[in-house]
Amino acid sequence: MSSVIKARVTVTLKNGVLDPQGKAIEHALSGLGFGGVGQVRQGKVFDVELAETDKAKAEADLKAMCDRLLANTVIENYSVAIT
Amino acid sequence: MSSVIKARVTVTLKNGVLDPQGKAIEHALSGLGFGGVGQVRQGKVFDVELAETDKAKAEADLKAMCDRLLANTVIENYSVAIT
Repeated sequence: MSSVIKARVTVTLKNGVLDPQGKAIEHALSGLGFGGVGQVRQGKVFDVELAETDKAKAEADLKAMCDRLLANTVIENYSVAIT
Repeated sequence: MSSVIKARVTVTLKNGVLDPQGKAIEHALSGLGFGGVGQVRQGKVFDVELAETDKAKAEADLKAMCDRLLANTVIENYSVAIT
């Protein structure tokens, strides 16, 4: 059993929060000739390696990291997936 | 059947490509007292809505979008997931 846990943290904007970056991408895609592009929202992803064997402990740690550093919970949601 | 396909495109740096942002997060997490944090790599995620019913066509379109706009394929990998 490996003692390194790899996790992927995904941080996305909450619904209703303006996303000018996403809007710009939407328009750029239409400009490139891609039809039927609806809403585009941009978010962030963090691939984190943790020296830990206990998955539950790792998940709790990762959530604490999101709350304290990785996400702005006022405007962003996050999800943690152990891979 | 819905005529809108929702997809998540994840763009990550290729192995070996320097990620100063990830390094900064690594150090910040250690500074906050999180022990055992190994490598952190930051990437981007795009949630795209497409007015399309054909999943295969949607996936091909999304890959073309990545090649042309969303990802820099010299230094980045991408993956497309229809949700």
